[in-house]
Amino acid sequence: MTQLEKALQLHEEWKGKLRVEAKMKVDSREALSMAYTPGVAEPCKKIHENPEDVYKYTMKGNFVAVVTDGTAVLGLGDIGPEAAMPVMEGKAVLFKEFGGVDAVPICLSTKDPEEIIETVKRIAPTFGGINLEDISAPRCFEIEKRLREELDIPVFHDDQHGTAMVVLAALTNALRVVGKSRENARVVVNGAGAAGIAISKLLLADGFGDVVLCDKVGILQEETPGMNPVQAEMSRITNKEGLKGSLADALAGADIFVGVSAPNIVTQEMVASMNSDAIVFAMANPVPEIMPDVAKAGGARIVGTGRSDFPNQINNVLVFPGLFKGALAARCKITEEIKLGVAHVLANMIPAEELTEENLIPYAFDPRVADTIANEVIRIAKQNG
Amino acid sequence: MTQLEKALQLHEEWKGKLRVEAKMKVDSREALSMAYTPGVAEPCKKIHENPEDVYKYTMKGNFVAVVTDGTAVLGLGDIGPEAAMPVMEGKAVLFKEFGGVDAVPICLSTKDPEEIIETVKRIAPTFGGINLEDISAPRCFEIEKRLREELDIPVFHDDQHGTAMVVLAALTNALRVVGKSRENARVVVNGAGAAGIAISKLLLADGFGDVVLCDKVGILQEETPGMNPVQAEMSRITNKEGLKGSLADALAGADIFVGVSAPNIVTQEMVASMNSDAIVFAMANPVPEIMPDVAKAGGARIVGTGRSDFPNQINNVLVFPGLFKGALAARCKITEEIKLGVAHVLANMIPAEELTEENLIPYAFDPRVADTIANEVIRIAKQNG
Repeated sequence: MTQLEKALQLHEEWKGKLRVEAKMKVDSREALSMAYTPGVAEPCKKIHENPEDVYKYTMKGNFVAVVTDGTAVLGLGDIGPEAAMPVMEGKAVLFKEFGGVDAVPICLSTKDPEEIIETVKRIAPTFGGINLEDISAPRCFEIEKRLREELDIPVFHDDQHGTAMVVLAALTNALRVVGKSRENARVVVNGAGAAGIAISKLLLADGFGDVVLCDKVGILQEETPGMNPVQAEMSRITNKEGLKGSLADALAGADIFVGVSAPNIVTQEMVASMNSDAIVFAMANPVPEIMPDVAKAGGARIVGTGRSDFPNQINNVLVFPGLFKGALAARCKITEEIKLGVAHVLANMIPAEELTEENLIPYAFDPRVADTIANEVIRIAKQNG
Repeated sequence: MTQLEKALQLHEEWKGKLRVEAKMKVDSREALSMAYTPGVAEPCKKIHENPEDVYKYTMKGNFVAVVTDGTAVLGLGDIGPEAAMPVMEGKAVLFKEFGGVDAVPICLSTKDPEEIIETVKRIAPTFGGINLEDISAPRCFEIEKRLREELDIPVFHDDQHGTAMVVLAALTNALRVVGKSRENARVVVNGAGAAGIAISKLLLADGFGDVVLCDKVGILQEETPGMNPVQAEMSRITNKEGLKGSLADALAGADIFVGVSAPNIVTQEMVASMNSDAIVFAMANPVPEIMPDVAKAGGARIVGTGRSDFPNQINNVLVFPGLFKGALAARCKITEEIKLGVAHVLANMIPAEELTEENLIPYAFDPRVADTIANEVIRIAKQNG
């Protein structure tokens, strides 16, 4: 049996990767009268008097909805809400196992951005946070922006910001290893979707001086045809040298490649055209933009991928469980400052003496990660009142 | 500390009565690759090819949303979605403890029936069933009707039909005890809201020959002013003798009183005006329409209430866990035939030799109840293909 066949068989045995459990036994009239009527009326009354008490007496404060419309699931694309369920359940499993957060899938039968926004707002009283997942770009940008503005609970699109934060952490340490500065290094980000755009924005916010964003059409610049509004905006705030041409043109003389795009689109020659001490993060899954051995043969000094079978796995699971754990505890929204702070605290978890080409970021199963991130979120939230 | 203070303190300790748990450990790369990427792509692909497979590979088939808008919560009224959370969590606890069903609250920030219908339809891909709860009448009728028609999963408004099924079960046995027939007995139902209307309809469907429905304005009949459309419809199909007047007028010569209304509105004299061997189900909570000792003094032979501290507790918890357990297993909607079948199987759980004035229906904690009901649902569903 292959690994994939085994995964399928396990899913059939599990029949769902989550279960809901009661925190108390209800095996007597006394117990029933505490957890249900008549006792339950007391917390209801308190919350009715003071809505904040919903955090005191209910699960809301540790309860996250993993919301998708199933339009951009893994590498599978628009497979719909039912077929997205296994991924959203898996995400909820990681929320619990790594962050101690109770989470459930909410898979929506609409792809209309206004309807998605409306629906999430209507179910929001139940939840302490909303994790948007696998919603296709550019729809995801507007949906997240509006929900962030219109809801008073944290809203986070992990495909954008989770990825961006882990990339920033890994890049921060990669630059330390090669001894280059973020101000002067040229970063080429390939893939102008949810992840690529969020990565580019976060790098700029962190002081990176030269970010070039590419997509299938090549380097995004003001005259690039067929850009969506968000890409058009990105074309104005990136590419300060006004480069034109293909991904290969962008990489010639670049210091860093960040791929969130497609398998095998970077060649050994393209890496060889980069500056010395090149950093290559090839994160297409499961087959990266360039295989690590080929990138190394092209002269890359540091290589990272999304895979667990190579060094430097750049994996979202490092961030979102601790991020939500902290945001739920602090009852705060996830700001730009928090995203930057978390990326740096994650980078700083690797002490200088352990930092090497093959050890840039913590291991996904390092038990310290979630609490370190949660504490940083809480620290920043407190600092800002 | 009073019992109510203790309930409040417990709610604060619990901070939510439910938790979400992963069914597997995710403590290694291997485990992560099974429950999440890359293994999770396999069930996604299968479900995308064959949508029915969502029941094979995900939690949908045992997952119920307990949906409310917080407009008719317990006796507290329109307290809103946040204040409704403790009740919906409690309901989900009972789903799990009695029926083994995974359930979560979904408390909505809209009271608009169209928006509620729309929202439930949009989140429906996630769930195997929808339990509507504490939505005020007459809005609840349209919401349930539309969702039953427009969704392919079971939709059930427990305040209506759960109550009706338990009442029918208890009445069936009460009639056996007193030796009267449903065809000839006059039943007076007081309270023309969600529960009272559903009880009246189910009794009629079961062959009761004379149901009189009353509300604050007295007996519902065609000229009663201020009725909503559902009450107007009920006024045409009940009250076959065309009675007019007050609840007291309806009770004179009646055989059965079923109260889902308000405390202390039935007097000893009103019970005394009923036929001999009167049956009085006074289910207002926590204070019934008439206290059992007073009803007995008025000549009632059988008295039931909603309370656990008197005999014959007529309690919704008897039905919905097993009902959903069965409907989820059979993947069927909850039809009129199922409602009647379940009520009778519940009544028949009390063997003739144990049936007495004070032992009409199973005890809420009888562990046989849920499976007996679930099996009856499955039997009827199979019979009807």
